[in-house]
Amino acid sequence: MPDNPSLIERCEVRERLFEGHFLQAWRDTVRLPDGSQATREYLVHPGAVVIVPLLEGSDGHYRVVLERQFRYPVGQVMIELPAGKLDAGEDPLPCARRELLEETGYSAAQWARAGQMHLAIAYSTEVIHIYFARGLTAGQRQLDAGEFLEVFTATPEELMTWCRQGQVTDAKTLACALWLHNVLSGAWPLDWQVSPSTDTP
Amino acid sequence: MPDNPSLIERCEVRERLFEGHFLQAWRDTVRLPDGSQATREYLVHPGAVVIVPLLEGSDGHYRVVLERQFRYPVGQVMIELPAGKLDAGEDPLPCARRELLEETGYSAAQWARAGQMHLAIAYSTEVIHIYFARGLTAGQRQLDAGEFLEVFTATPEELMTWCRQGQVTDAKTLACALWLHNVLSGAWPLDWQVSPSTDTP
Repeated sequence: MPDNPSLIERCEVRERLFEGHFLQAWRDTVRLPDGSQATREYLVHPGAVVIVPLLEGSDGHYRVVLERQFRYPVGQVMIELPAGKLDAGEDPLPCARRELLEETGYSAAQWARAGQMHLAIAYSTEVIHIYFARGLTAGQRQLDAGEFLEVFTATPEELMTWCRQGQVTDAKTLACALWLHNVLSGAWPLDWQVSPSTDTP
Repeated sequence: MPDNPSLIERCEVRERLFEGHFLQAWRDTVRLPDGSQATREYLVHPGAVVIVPLLEGSDGHYRVVLERQFRYPVGQVMIELPAGKLDAGEDPLPCARRELLEETGYSAAQWARAGQMHLAIAYSTEVIHIYFARGLTAGQRQLDAGEFLEVFTATPEELMTWCRQGQVTDAKTLACALWLHNVLSGAWPLDWQVSPSTDTP
């Protein structure tokens, strides 16, 4: 349905609030639906990917590849799915392949795009593209300098229990758990594609 | 389980990056697990609440109270659950009652705390406390100056379809949809409490 015009805000002035090494912030002066003015401060983010990597166990059931990573802003080691930012000009699927390999060492024979999420709509432009990966082959991970994380696997049931009990509180991982639950139940079937990277010698 | 010490980063120097009207950013110099140094830039956020308000329909089934709100950073009208920031010194449950009333006009006879999520762990301290509300009584909403939003209701099935098809991409709402699905299926029972505000005349 078309957006209600009585909700829309329009930019009138745009000024850079600051440019950090990592964060880029803007402050816009906007015209509100009632004609009054307000300011909106927000981060500009290049976009990101998150991957739900499914490892076929010897019992025929899937295990999910997860990470433990210290996240400085929240001061905790977080359980989360592999994820990472888009490089300049990078498409989401190549980014997903790159991040999965770099962080976990896995390459996937099949990929499926599930959807996308907007992470922090009050103050960030960030959109995260959600991918599922299966047919995993283990290899050597290639962490960035200054990147420290542990890779481990869990059953989908374990992941759901951790979401319920509070061991998993990362919003992108919780959102992907909704996808995982519905994909595994058959309610939300995916359109799996053979990865082009596996076609080359 | 205890955090792996080989993952932890420790603050050595803390400097304010900028203080906006809305955004507060810091840049810390940290000691990495391997002894090297790095900088971490992040927003300090007061915390927030999100509410899953359940309206009992005449058919005995629940409907979910949702909002349409233009979110300037992503430039779209978003479908999302009622939510808002903690005021200074405010506890999460009073904040949830206040935000539900202000944004939707509803008061709830029963509340249940579901859990919490960390919204943007790469660059924000924000934690969102998740509440369910039922036994809703309609009243007059009290939007903040400069706040424009539409309130509407949907069945849980409609909400799930929108999550799958991409009409709902707000991360906090997707994470709450995981809770809603499991609460309604009976897999994740809640501990409902009678709201103290309904005990007073």
